[in-house]
Amino acid sequence: MSDQAAEAAEWAATPDDYAERMARAAREAVAAGLSGVLVTPGPDLFWLCGYRPTAITERLTLLVLTPETEPHLLVPALERPDAEAAPGAGAVRVTDWSDGQDPYAAAAGLLRPHGRYGVSDAAWALHLLGLQEALPLTAYRALTTALPMLRAVKDEHEVARLAAAGAAADATYEDILGVRFAGRRETEVAADLARLLREHGHSQVDFTVVGSGPNGANPHHEAGDRVIRDGDMVVLDFGGLKDGYGSDTTRTVHVGPPTDEERRVHDLVRTAQQAAFEAVRPGVSCQEIDRVARAVITDGGYGDHFIHRTGHGIGVTTHEPPYLVEGEEQPLVPGMCFSIEPGVYLPGRFGVRIEDIVTCTAEGGRRLNGTPHELAVVA
Amino acid sequence: MSDQAAEAAEWAATPDDYAERMARAAREAVAAGLSGVLVTPGPDLFWLCGYRPTAITERLTLLVLTPETEPHLLVPALERPDAEAAPGAGAVRVTDWSDGQDPYAAAAGLLRPHGRYGVSDAAWALHLLGLQEALPLTAYRALTTALPMLRAVKDEHEVARLAAAGAAADATYEDILGVRFAGRRETEVAADLARLLREHGHSQVDFTVVGSGPNGANPHHEAGDRVIRDGDMVVLDFGGLKDGYGSDTTRTVHVGPPTDEERRVHDLVRTAQQAAFEAVRPGVSCQEIDRVARAVITDGGYGDHFIHRTGHGIGVTTHEPPYLVEGEEQPLVPGMCFSIEPGVYLPGRFGVRIEDIVTCTAEGGRRLNGTPHELAVVA
Repeated sequence: MSDQAAEAAEWAATPDDYAERMARAAREAVAAGLSGVLVTPGPDLFWLCGYRPTAITERLTLLVLTPETEPHLLVPALERPDAEAAPGAGAVRVTDWSDGQDPYAAAAGLLRPHGRYGVSDAAWALHLLGLQEALPLTAYRALTTALPMLRAVKDEHEVARLAAAGAAADATYEDILGVRFAGRRETEVAADLARLLREHGHSQVDFTVVGSGPNGANPHHEAGDRVIRDGDMVVLDFGGLKDGYGSDTTRTVHVGPPTDEERRVHDLVRTAQQAAFEAVRPGVSCQEIDRVARAVITDGGYGDHFIHRTGHGIGVTTHEPPYLVEGEEQPLVPGMCFSIEPGVYLPGRFGVRIEDIVTCTAEGGRRLNGTPHELAVVA
Repeated sequence: MSDQAAEAAEWAATPDDYAERMARAAREAVAAGLSGVLVTPGPDLFWLCGYRPTAITERLTLLVLTPETEPHLLVPALERPDAEAAPGAGAVRVTDWSDGQDPYAAAAGLLRPHGRYGVSDAAWALHLLGLQEALPLTAYRALTTALPMLRAVKDEHEVARLAAAGAAADATYEDILGVRFAGRRETEVAADLARLLREHGHSQVDFTVVGSGPNGANPHHEAGDRVIRDGDMVVLDFGGLKDGYGSDTTRTVHVGPPTDEERRVHDLVRTAQQAAFEAVRPGVSCQEIDRVARAVITDGGYGDHFIHRTGHGIGVTTHEPPYLVEGEEQPLVPGMCFSIEPGVYLPGRFGVRIEDIVTCTAEGGRRLNGTPHELAVVA
């Protein structure tokens, strides 16, 4: 383990960190014209108070953050012991509701009848509709719309965690180059990736894309029964969570020697990825990074085959703001961490994608993945 | 594998099954005063058209079901190939939106400006708010509120799948009785449960509760670092998905001989579970089943320690309507499948819960789990 990885592994957010995050969320809500923030189980709740319920269910769990009151966590009675054991619970007032009671009436008692609230993106419609019915004059905005940058700027500890997750993804990639590709199913190589991510310290594997030959032309193809053949391009896109923070890396490899066209497309994607990386610096807009990558691929004649945005933020989830996409004018800020992952997809033939996690520093971009971008030839 | 299990494994919903489910959802929506149903990724989408995206993300995927149009599935462009490969896709018109476009504008084109729609419970607030903003005069109800029984009555194939999942849970329980408990951490026994569920055919493990000693008194305790000791009661609650359908079984075991009180509490819970099971017949309300179980435990002097509802439906999820809870007046209908799981929780000491999946038939209840309820003594 590197010194940085060791340091990252030792760090844990303290009750004071959680209290400060919750206070900041309330402050930013007010600055955005809101009365407060309503947080349901998922990454927001985990980041704000360290609580991650065993399962996300139909039973309402709601953290209410407002500037005028202490943080309040409403939980199902039977989950109260778990909630009270969360590392940030010391800074939170916990109350509960029991099966058979109306949880929205209980929540309404914590809200202002005419309040405007930011609400977790992934809050269930069931719960939002329950709140809207209990308090018809309240208004809501999705948290990533209202406060898109709440979790976007990482502190040094969080960047170290992301770097440690990236180092584990690097080690996974180095190991996977040594496995057999030809003659094995995509699902078998995907299982190798999942095993390796876990061996290198991941507690959760979120995706293990193995897109061989024509399957690589579907950017969200996961892994299927197709047997990988000599002569295939293979897109490998894998990641998950290590010590609570995400990894997400893509490399495209080739079984045996590539054709000239395959090499040309791979070089183009590599050039686009490098150009976008070099464009990273504070103040540059998210959409500008997308434009830089897209211009390289368009100039190379493959613009119609780059069919997704250039990247997404990463932190306690593997997909979060900021999004590097046309229309996103948010300027980059030191501490933001995001993927840069241009690709070219040729239907029925093959795909190429290269992805690193990058953090914006005062001096420019710094990659949190370190393996080479050259087209690796596998067996 | 039993004949029933073999039959269940061979069955798969056909495109006609999916078309019929989607048409029924639209009809039931109209009967409930709605314009249609909006379905996002998760169990509703899987049940209605067989599509399960690789990941549920911030990108909008929406199935629109109305009586006047064919089913319409709006998907992110990069996920279109996966959506078109879904088994029910033949009965659905698929269109897409691309990164940088407004998905809610695209969805609005499929909806009536004054429409009232049922929407998947677990649809993200981000998406519901996007629809509410794009079409401010539309109204929404959560699908389990508006059409709670849409998926509740299972056909014979679905009951067979649930029985096959239950048989796998039974086999898991029989195997776990042979492992070592004393001296091992709860997490180690939980890992055994997960491994056994997978060995017996589960593709997904949803929960592996191992609540030893005082941890058993927290009904939603999952498994922790506590080392199990001689003399502990241990609640084992485990389940997941096998061939797309759920299992959920609880048995409480004891390490070495139990005390008289432990045996008395266990007997009480067992009597309550049996009484509730025997009360199952068509026309009896869901809350009545809860009352029957609760009366036994209250009469036994432990009413304050039965702190959750008696059960929940199960199908393509492990928690869904009908809920067996005070206030739920829905009558039981043949084909409904649900848990019956009374428990007693003594804080700081121990807990007991016994849970079977039960289906309502014309003649009464039939258990889909078959292992004995006697308090098993483990080593």
